[in-house]
Amino acid sequence: MTATPETTEAMLARVRDSIDRQGMMATLGVELVAVSRGRVELALRHDERFTQQHGFMHAGAVAAVLDSACGYAAYSVMPPDASVLTVTYTINLLAPAAGQRFAITGAVVRSGRTLVVCRGEAFADGADRPFAAMQATMTALYDRPGISG
Amino acid sequence: MTATPETTEAMLARVRDSIDRQGMMATLGVELVAVSRGRVELALRHDERFTQQHGFMHAGAVAAVLDSACGYAAYSVMPPDASVLTVTYTINLLAPAAGQRFAITGAVVRSGRTLVVCRGEAFADGADRPFAAMQATMTALYDRPGISG
Amino acid sequence: MTATPETTEAMLARVRDSIDRQGMMATLGVELVAVSRGRVELALRHDERFTQQHGFMHAGAVAAVLDSACGYAAYSVMPPDASVLTVTYTINLLAPAAGQRFAITGAVVRSGRTLVVCRGEAFADGADRPFAAMQATMTALYDRPGISG
Amino acid sequence: MTATPETTEAMLARVRDSIDRQGMMATLGVELVAVSRGRVELALRHDERFTQQHGFMHAGAVAAVLDSACGYAAYSVMPPDASVLTVTYTINLLAPAAGQRFAITGAVVRSGRTLVVCRGEAFADGADRPFAAMQATMTALYDRPGISG
Repeated sequence: MTATPETTEAMLARVRDSIDRQGMMATLGVELVAVSRGRVELALRHDERFTQQHGFMHAGAVAAVLDSACGYAAYSVMPPDASVLTVTYTINLLAPAAGQRFAITGAVVRSGRTLVVCRGEAFADGADRPFAAMQATMTALYDRPGISG
Repeated sequence: MTATPETTEAMLARVRDSIDRQGMMATLGVELVAVSRGRVELALRHDERFTQQHGFMHAGAVAAVLDSACGYAAYSVMPPDASVLTVTYTINLLAPAAGQRFAITGAVVRSGRTLVVCRGEAFADGADRPFAAMQATMTALYDRPGISG
Repeated sequence: MTATPETTEAMLARVRDSIDRQGMMATLGVELVAVSRGRVELALRHDERFTQQHGFMHAGAVAAVLDSACGYAAYSVMPPDASVLTVTYTINLLAPAAGQRFAITGAVVRSGRTLVVCRGEAFADGADRPFAAMQATMTALYDRPGISG
Repeated sequence: MTATPETTEAMLARVRDSIDRQGMMATLGVELVAVSRGRVELALRHDERFTQQHGFMHAGAVAAVLDSACGYAAYSVMPPDASVLTVTYTINLLAPAAGQRFAITGAVVRSGRTLVVCRGEAFADGADRPFAAMQATMTALYDRPGISG
């Protein structure tokens, strides 16, 4: 038995559909900038609701979007019937999240049978050096009732 | 020269004041449950605005509160004129954040001259096993204009 | 069908047998101090062959033993036919590895179907505060030719 | 006051001198392949003394060399009077360390006043995909008696 390979269009629709179902992404106002197999770019804007005590964007908001960028990068290389869950990630906050618009990328380093390792980076206002860097481990789930995408 | 040691009351006021200045904590509806030197407990409630695609609370929301619990645990053992910033953390998501109320703790493992290492755990609805675990590295900042608490 | 639960003696023999097959543990001179379900304690001695440039034990030697302590803690709660592999770990070096004898512990935080999350700590010469802390993710493998223990 | 910038030759000598003082690197048989400002490549060979229970190189050996590659990448961009210590790192083991010769790289992601964040990758026998990936946080130390390099 051979499966018909998923088209790029179907993969894009699958990723977009999953993003659309995340309350967190809508609440944070995250925009999908680009998707290809193994790489996703999202954008986040400065928002007073999500600041830390010094007025910069809270690491948690940045981490949530980096986590999603890595998760969708992993999801883009998984079989269509898989769901993706984050196992663990490490984030380094290299500088405060100071800026108006943040470009947040996730890319697959290597994908195995069930685990996919990704790296993400966050850039402020067109900077070429990241202010945050993530290394994340994602897992593919199959046939879990109530879990899809 | 010897400094007068900070009283517990002054430390509690300092932590509470810093939490009150975090837009992110207010937006997430985080409640301060307990503070002592080197340990902080926060509470988070399930909220549709912060879910992932399967309807559970997004790892980013849980991570933000774990990060804060660890950050305030570190802050509680820092000198009164220090500010706290997260250097890096690792989070393991051990199970979905399924529940109505999440108890989220941070505790100092060891504090050095400028770096403080903490561990955090998140528990759903009175469970005794955590559904998320964090290991975090915090830093003390001094004399940075525009940065306090 | 119900499997006969593994006896504690069988589990201990299984862990000891796996440790005995690790060239790295023998080379580092690691001693097995204690094993129970979900918890392992190993001991490492200061050795000039494994120092870093300042004369302390290299973080890599400490990490290797912490990794093994966590790995065997995970292995102790896995089914007898599973093999254990490290997926990822984070280590914080809280102070130099200064001392003659290092007690190194690993304990299971939570075990799932294939992933087990553990935490480890390293103590120098009877100190009660760790000089290194690990958070590790282990996986159970089944039916891989050439892989056992 | 302006300091005379360190020449590349002086930096290379400083890195090589520090590596030469690491007992661990000599014991593991690590070879220095390349150094430039912010990037270091080391090589490790398969050695029965450093295997895990399945006969592959132990993650601890790979981690020690990745840690060193990241540490020396950080050291190469630090002032000449600084010493380097590892604060924390996260390693993902993406596949077993199966091979005869391992190329192990470390590169600076961003350097701050005292902390330098690096990423490292390990490749087996000329493979173009890494079998291990590290994200590491290094710190610069000054004026600590008994600590240099």
